[in-house]
Amino acid sequence: MRVLLVGAGGVGTAVTRIAARRPFFEHMVVADHDPARAEAAVTALGADGARFRAERVDAADEDGVGALLERHRCDVLLNATDPRFVMPLFRAARDAGATYVDMAMSLSRPHAERPYEECGVKLGDEQFAQAGAWEKAGALALVGMGVEPGLSDVFARYAADELFDVIEEIGVRDGANLTVDGHDFAPSFSIWTTIEECLNPPVVYEADRGWFTTAPFSEPEVFDFPEGIGPVECVNVEHEEVLLVPRWVDARRVTFKYGLGREFIDTLRTLHLLGLDRTEPVTVPGPGGPVRVSPRDVVAACLPDPAALGERMHGKTCAGTWVRGVKDGAPREVYLYHVVDNQWSMTEYGCQAVVWQTAVNPVVALELLATGAWSGTGVLGPEAFPAGPFLDLLTAYGSPWGLREQ
Amino acid sequence: MRVLLVGAGGVGTAVTRIAARRPFFEHMVVADHDPARAEAAVTALGADGARFRAERVDAADEDGVGALLERHRCDVLLNATDPRFVMPLFRAARDAGATYVDMAMSLSRPHAERPYEECGVKLGDEQFAQAGAWEKAGALALVGMGVEPGLSDVFARYAADELFDVIEEIGVRDGANLTVDGHDFAPSFSIWTTIEECLNPPVVYEADRGWFTTAPFSEPEVFDFPEGIGPVECVNVEHEEVLLVPRWVDARRVTFKYGLGREFIDTLRTLHLLGLDRTEPVTVPGPGGPVRVSPRDVVAACLPDPAALGERMHGKTCAGTWVRGVKDGAPREVYLYHVVDNQWSMTEYGCQAVVWQTAVNPVVALELLATGAWSGTGVLGPEAFPAGPFLDLLTAYGSPWGLREQ
Repeated sequence: MRVLLVGAGGVGTAVTRIAARRPFFEHMVVADHDPARAEAAVTALGADGARFRAERVDAADEDGVGALLERHRCDVLLNATDPRFVMPLFRAARDAGATYVDMAMSLSRPHAERPYEECGVKLGDEQFAQAGAWEKAGALALVGMGVEPGLSDVFARYAADELFDVIEEIGVRDGANLTVDGHDFAPSFSIWTTIEECLNPPVVYEADRGWFTTAPFSEPEVFDFPEGIGPVECVNVEHEEVLLVPRWVDARRVTFKYGLGREFIDTLRTLHLLGLDRTEPVTVPGPGGPVRVSPRDVVAACLPDPAALGERMHGKTCAGTWVRGVKDGAPREVYLYHVVDNQWSMTEYGCQAVVWQTAVNPVVALELLATGAWSGTGVLGPEAFPAGPFLDLLTAYGSPWGLREQ
Repeated sequence: MRVLLVGAGGVGTAVTRIAARRPFFEHMVVADHDPARAEAAVTALGADGARFRAERVDAADEDGVGALLERHRCDVLLNATDPRFVMPLFRAARDAGATYVDMAMSLSRPHAERPYEECGVKLGDEQFAQAGAWEKAGALALVGMGVEPGLSDVFARYAADELFDVIEEIGVRDGANLTVDGHDFAPSFSIWTTIEECLNPPVVYEADRGWFTTAPFSEPEVFDFPEGIGPVECVNVEHEEVLLVPRWVDARRVTFKYGLGREFIDTLRTLHLLGLDRTEPVTVPGPGGPVRVSPRDVVAACLPDPAALGERMHGKTCAGTWVRGVKDGAPREVYLYHVVDNQWSMTEYGCQAVVWQTAVNPVVALELLATGAWSGTGVLGPEAFPAGPFLDLLTAYGSPWGLREQ
């Protein structure tokens, strides 16, 4: 296997560090729009970096991406950029005949008239619209293969195969107790993407109703996270799992709730109330005359870079899938989860926990594709594949998962 | 009397409309850095505008202001700009031999080591440092002569002269029930100034301790405002009255609490937490490359212009002074207040309530100076003058005040 990794930000860099310890692939090209970032990721691997090579790439330039795939004879493109580049990279991989893997799907657009009731363009719609072409070509696009979506979808499939006869509800629940020394407020992930996720109309699936949307921050609940994280307030958020799981797993209801906590929810509400979440530029006086800036970019510029906070971060992050249903005639409720302690990921990989947890899953998936344990054609989510081999390999990577009977 | 009014924003424009109905002055020059704004204020007066004349001025240019005072033979400078221009205008008036009147005092700077315990440079310190020069010249600077500071200080003097033998505490309390159609969040006053006021360390005076500071939003209390406004949560805020009142009125304690309400307090806290209250520029990506902007300017740019909201505003605003002490051996507690209904000020003057309430007080003061009912030399606050004539004239302007025994 020869991989083109596009994006050498926090997640891309963690991918190189995890993959460097595994022999399943032959070559990995690390490409970024900033060649210094790609170079830094490869250099940091030291003696383990022999199979890696840094390149410059513009992720929006399909022809350039195609040329890079061809030049390095890559058979897989792993997309570790932000969701705005999903479609060009997805198309470039198809055109070059490469397998495509990403961790976030093509973007949604709210319903024009009833944004908080009906779906407009859904997450992944643009990709699934191309499923026929991928199938026909005998090619595979494995979409949403990070931690959430990704591992959370694997958990859903595992629950359906191994733990339940009938599933009432599958609810992905994500929470953390991370703090950052010296910062009262420092999100451990991109505020730009968090605003996008949290202020878009959350999507919910119900078997008798299909997909529909609600108002932001709907259905608040306090979920008790394992391994000492404890109770965190969670709310509905737009997320890929709600679009992926029902395509392959039978469940009456699918939700995604993000453990933002009360303070963070209030912060996002305030940003929205003040119009500071907007991406359309506003005109602001500047030292050399008026300038135009996107308020959301200004919010991001005022906060520290989450990828650079690892050293000063403490705590754990938990991704998982809560499932309620029936097994052998009796009601059952479980939470399948994966916890990463920031201290462990920093010591072992020099990566902060959230970023490492996202990155490990596509590497496990690539290894399963390389060994043939996973195979398929078309545009497929992680729940389209057998869950057992994935969970076993994840454990073999030194990062076990857990199951809590509720 | 010939007046140079500097600043034709919301308050300056309201000053022209109120003054136009009073015969006490001969000529008023309306000057603004934007000549169109000054022109618009004068044009709006129509047939009542004969005594007014629009000019362009840079409020930071002392020589230019001096030349304007001289050219129009003005004996009074009324400053209706934002507090950054207090010192140049104050100096320009002194140099030209004009009486100076403002509605906000020279800015404070927090204590370098203990900002939330000790005062650094206090509001007005720079102005009071020049008091000797004004006295020696037999000239008058009447500082803090808006509604708060201003009318609130007049109330304090009235309470001391007429209502109490001993005063325990004087607490200015400001609250409103204003709402704006079509906006979930639309402050009725400059967000830039509000952030400045509310996030600076609040100052408190105690007779046995002098002036000291606290953390922002300290000593929350719910104050019941009159005329249907009702209970509003108030917190300590840095304000001029705390610096002015103890110089002329004997009180054991002086505070200023702003009825921000819970939502507004939380909003300001969030802006502070995210660093969006900062005035130092941050670097932000722009369509034509990175640009530098002040986050606080971006917040202001995202919100509607408060001066333009009058038509869609509903409700009342209340400024007042609560006093607790002893009269004739018995405990007494009163609230002296002034309420403006937005509907009334819009109908009568085409000005929104907060702006009109600020503007009426300096006009009343100018009239008292013109008639000789008020006179003095040095740098003096409103409480340095007899309160009775002021309150009578305010009532004669069609805007009565109230007294509530608690």
